[in-house]
Amino acid sequence: MKTLKIPEATIIRLSVYSRYLTEVDRKGIITISSGDIAEGVGVSPAQVRKDLAYFGEFGTRGVGYNVKDLRRHILKILGLSVDWNVTLVGLGNLGHALCSYKGFRERGFIITSIFDNDSSKIGTTMNGVEVMPVEQLVEVVKQNRTQIGIISVPVSAAQDITDKLVQAGVQAILNFAPVVLNVPPEIELRNVDLAVNLEVLTFNVGAQRF
Amino acid sequence: MKTLKIPEATIIRLSVYSRYLTEVDRKGIITISSGDIAEGVGVSPAQVRKDLAYFGEFGTRGVGYNVKDLRRHILKILGLSVDWNVTLVGLGNLGHALCSYKGFRERGFIITSIFDNDSSKIGTTMNGVEVMPVEQLVEVVKQNRTQIGIISVPVSAAQDITDKLVQAGVQAILNFAPVVLNVPPEIELRNVDLAVNLEVLTFNVGAQRF
Repeated sequence: MKTLKIPEATIIRLSVYSRYLTEVDRKGIITISSGDIAEGVGVSPAQVRKDLAYFGEFGTRGVGYNVKDLRRHILKILGLSVDWNVTLVGLGNLGHALCSYKGFRERGFIITSIFDNDSSKIGTTMNGVEVMPVEQLVEVVKQNRTQIGIISVPVSAAQDITDKLVQAGVQAILNFAPVVLNVPPEIELRNVDLAVNLEVLTFNVGAQRF
Repeated sequence: MKTLKIPEATIIRLSVYSRYLTEVDRKGIITISSGDIAEGVGVSPAQVRKDLAYFGEFGTRGVGYNVKDLRRHILKILGLSVDWNVTLVGLGNLGHALCSYKGFRERGFIITSIFDNDSSKIGTTMNGVEVMPVEQLVEVVKQNRTQIGIISVPVSAAQDITDKLVQAGVQAILNFAPVVLNVPPEIELRNVDLAVNLEVLTFNVGAQRF
């Protein structure tokens, strides 16, 4: 049922729903209505139903959704029914923070290799993963069949690292460097701009005044 | 013209448009069409027009938008025509990365105070800002009339810090701790979940296969 026309906002909400369903499931709750989900995550019930409707029929009218089934189905839609093999390039402050970020592992994103060009970092380990020199990136990422690359290097190195990741065969790149990267069309690229989060806040602070 | 009904996805796109307009303006381009903006940022021209229409009439039919005016207008909508006074709490790896993040300052988010409870960090400076003990948070944040708090402390400390920020009078909180925080309704709260970015990628990688 997947198509390429699903709005990104829907995908992000599906991610939020699945986290909420994980919580609900832990409490031992068996069935849930779209209204309960809506209230739990702070959107309208109609939005929940619309988001889920992109992916076919779920639930039973008047009964609601089976929590475990719906959670499993959403995780599958998001591509999270399997683990993903991730490489991280650039072990500065942000890279360190990302390596220690528990939320990745919980959702099945496993950092299996780390690269840096700082000789004082190479050979050390982060969460049991050895830091390797960037010169080995293409070989190791290819060998590991790594699917996702996270770029947390300075702007000046970002395109070179991107080219190496593409050469090594990754399918997707998450870029934290504030620079526009060139990738072939078959590579999924997402740029993370942390300032945007603050801008949503300041917009809302402003909107309260009207 | 602002209302509370603007979709968050629109706000995020406005942020993207404004960055693109900054680039275009630097190149000395005077006017731009919605089609040009759309192509530059990778959305449809109809989407650009729809997003801008939330905020009234811009541009001249057949001529397009004046780049400088449109950029200024969007920044004003986003609340970025003034600088924001920001405090950062928790100077771990992520806190360090956020303090060094140039994108904040470029968009007018100025980190004017930093707090931590680690005595080896207190008294040191980050980008000219002294790290202070958490005990001084309420007093200093109040005195500085700080509007935004960034939380990059461990989960166990996040609610306590939130309460202190609220007590000190911030209007908005950006939370990086993976925990649900309780705030009064007048406080704008945004939780940043870095794993969601990977999930949008894996969804798209999956969607390509269908």
